[in-house]
Amino acid sequence: VNLILVEPSEVTSESDVTLTGDRARHLRQILKVTPAQTVRLGIIDGACGTGLVTHLSADSVTLRCTFAELPLHPPVDLLLALPRPKVMRRLWAQLAALGVGRIILTNAERVARNYFDAHVLTPECYRPLLIEGLQQARDTHLPLVSIHRQFRILVEDELDAMAGEATRIVADPCGAVPIRDVAARARSRVLIAVGPEGGWNPFELSLLDAHGFQRAGMGPRTLRSDTACIALLALVHDAIGSG
Amino acid sequence: VNLILVEPSEVTSESDVTLTGDRARHLRQILKVTPAQTVRLGIIDGACGTGLVTHLSADSVTLRCTFAELPLHPPVDLLLALPRPKVMRRLWAQLAALGVGRIILTNAERVARNYFDAHVLTPECYRPLLIEGLQQARDTHLPLVSIHRQFRILVEDELDAMAGEATRIVADPCGAVPIRDVAARARSRVLIAVGPEGGWNPFELSLLDAHGFQRAGMGPRTLRSDTACIALLALVHDAIGSG
Repeated sequence: VNLILVEPSEVTSESDVTLTGDRARHLRQILKVTPAQTVRLGIIDGACGTGLVTHLSADSVTLRCTFAELPLHPPVDLLLALPRPKVMRRLWAQLAALGVGRIILTNAERVARNYFDAHVLTPECYRPLLIEGLQQARDTHLPLVSIHRQFRILVEDELDAMAGEATRIVADPCGAVPIRDVAARARSRVLIAVGPEGGWNPFELSLLDAHGFQRAGMGPRTLRSDTACIALLALVHDAIGSG
Repeated sequence: VNLILVEPSEVTSESDVTLTGDRARHLRQILKVTPAQTVRLGIIDGACGTGLVTHLSADSVTLRCTFAELPLHPPVDLLLALPRPKVMRRLWAQLAALGVGRIILTNAERVARNYFDAHVLTPECYRPLLIEGLQQARDTHLPLVSIHRQFRILVEDELDAMAGEATRIVADPCGAVPIRDVAARARSRVLIAVGPEGGWNPFELSLLDAHGFQRAGMGPRTLRSDTACIALLALVHDAIGSG
């Protein structure tokens, strides 16, 4: 944990916050804080700053907060064909750490229907994992998550409202155009689409084509979809200089 | 599986190979092969080509092989402070899929000693996982794995023989120099060093400095060491045009 995140409601009007549970344990046992020490602290979807330790008890830590800087909103969004639950569980924290504005999960022909019933798609499960990733990367922006069971309705009717102005890229294992080149020309945000294991089917690919997604790749190696997500997000952030 | 890998010893002098077990099941049940069909096939540490299905039985598939192309040897090596066993288990296949010539695992102050006793560091455990990654990425080059319990001896006495001519980079979360720029100037191979959770200690960093490692980073976000490995390997491959 490189930044302790707190909910806006946890900060009093005097800018004090009293932590208990995991965060208090982390401060006491891992960081071994002492009174008058400062730690990095941020408000979820808000500013970053520091917390001055004002009081320690057996199971709580009280901090006086000073907020300064608002982290930049990650200029990259991810459209991902829902991977199997075990893989998705591992991805949440990694995606938040790499930095994404939105995580748009979708159905596709090669996505098993029962993946949508997984516990890992409930906010109770994924929100703490996203926060874990933000605390690792010192970000405060909780990615917006949406789950879409109908790919065609998503692409035709819903995507413009979510990512209207973004440069749209679909990751293509055969892509001759390097993703870096397409991303580097983006004027505002980048939306990167990553298909299921086995790829998008021809209908899905043509629908993405018709809605402005440019095909681009990162070389001849075919990666598992979770590895591909991490590699692609790293390349896009690097290309647009927001890494 | 995008390429079926076989051991050199499995190929007869007539270029036939008979597969049983998992690979036969994959061919029959997932790829649903029929006689006279061809599939992509490669020899571990050898050439890629195709296999023509000549015989199917309940539990075996026989193929007549034609080998053509020798995949390029990945021009990137990884020096990694040993992560905890659970993380290392997940990394093997992903590292092989991204493409690394060598995986050099090392001790460091912030690596727990008992990580070295883990089952995941035995070839019986990691070799099948590396092959899984190669089959995903259509590569045949099995990464060379070495495990070093003494960081100083590794860097001072052993590294030159393993990575003498490589451009050496140490991933630095505070690195002002983009890793892409350093990697793009590499003349032959790149060796990228990734520290433990919590980072290298000052002695370790200065030893790396003294042995030619240039510090470079990929932006202000601090990533978990497994996420960092994947992101860094993607960026280095992209920078040197071998992705």
